[in-house]
Amino acid sequence: MHSRPRPVAVAGAFDDLRRDTMATMSHYSRVQELAFWQGALGQELPGIYSAEYHGAFLRGTGLMLLMQRLESGAPRVHLDIHTDDLDAEVARLERLGAERVQKVQSWWVMRDPVGLLFCVLPMSPGSLNEENAQRWE
Amino acid sequence: MHSRPRPVAVAGAFDDLRRDTMATMSHYSRVQELAFWQGALGQELPGIYSAEYHGAFLRGTGLMLLMQRLESGAPRVHLDIHTDDLDAEVARLERLGAERVQKVQSWWVMRDPVGLLFCVLPMSPGSLNEENAQRWE
Repeated sequence: MHSRPRPVAVAGAFDDLRRDTMATMSHYSRVQELAFWQGALGQELPGIYSAEYHGAFLRGTGLMLLMQRLESGAPRVHLDIHTDDLDAEVARLERLGAERVQKVQSWWVMRDPVGLLFCVLPMSPGSLNEENAQRWE
Repeated sequence: MHSRPRPVAVAGAFDDLRRDTMATMSHYSRVQELAFWQGALGQELPGIYSAEYHGAFLRGTGLMLLMQRLESGAPRVHLDIHTDDLDAEVARLERLGAERVQKVQSWWVMRDPVGLLFCVLPMSPGSLNEENAQRWE
């Protein structure tokens, strides 16, 4: 048995392509981007997990919006899928047509059939249940 | 008074760059992509609004995942913001640092401070309330 919930995180990148050459501008861009989305949502997005992330559960939903500092690449949005059995869930998604791209720390980056990247993240045992997750046998 | 909810739609593109030159492959890609995300979510994503969209509310959340057929560009994900006062909400987001990009049918495409595109969609009067929306005076 393993369970896999609806996606519970939406990760919004908040760096830009100028980071490598204009660190000050990039820092400014990140601060500006965070301020924008906090204002747009009417909600604080405090630091979470590490210096790389800011985020919070969107009020009244089981979904979290995370802003992630990127090291490279254009600003982008991706979906996260949470699971309490990483190997089983990654294998299930492979059978559906996704490919493994890279293991990063504890999670897998995967690519869907048309090339969209998404992440599959392991959750602590007990954090997923019948209320917030889909059970796969 | 106008109200603006948390984002209630996540739009996932499901076309690819080969569409113009390989219509059959592109049609196949769309079918494959839709099948993948239905399987990943364990949820049907029926046609909705028009032939351009498939989607459904994610179970147990107030958020909808929409798959949109794209005419051009790489596959991508964007966020939608719903409002019952489009002009006021677009102006509010401009004051926060976003820019108008293009009016498409009834909604606005906007660009956030680091270049991410998102949409602001008008909803029917009465569809937003204190439970599913943030009120802005």
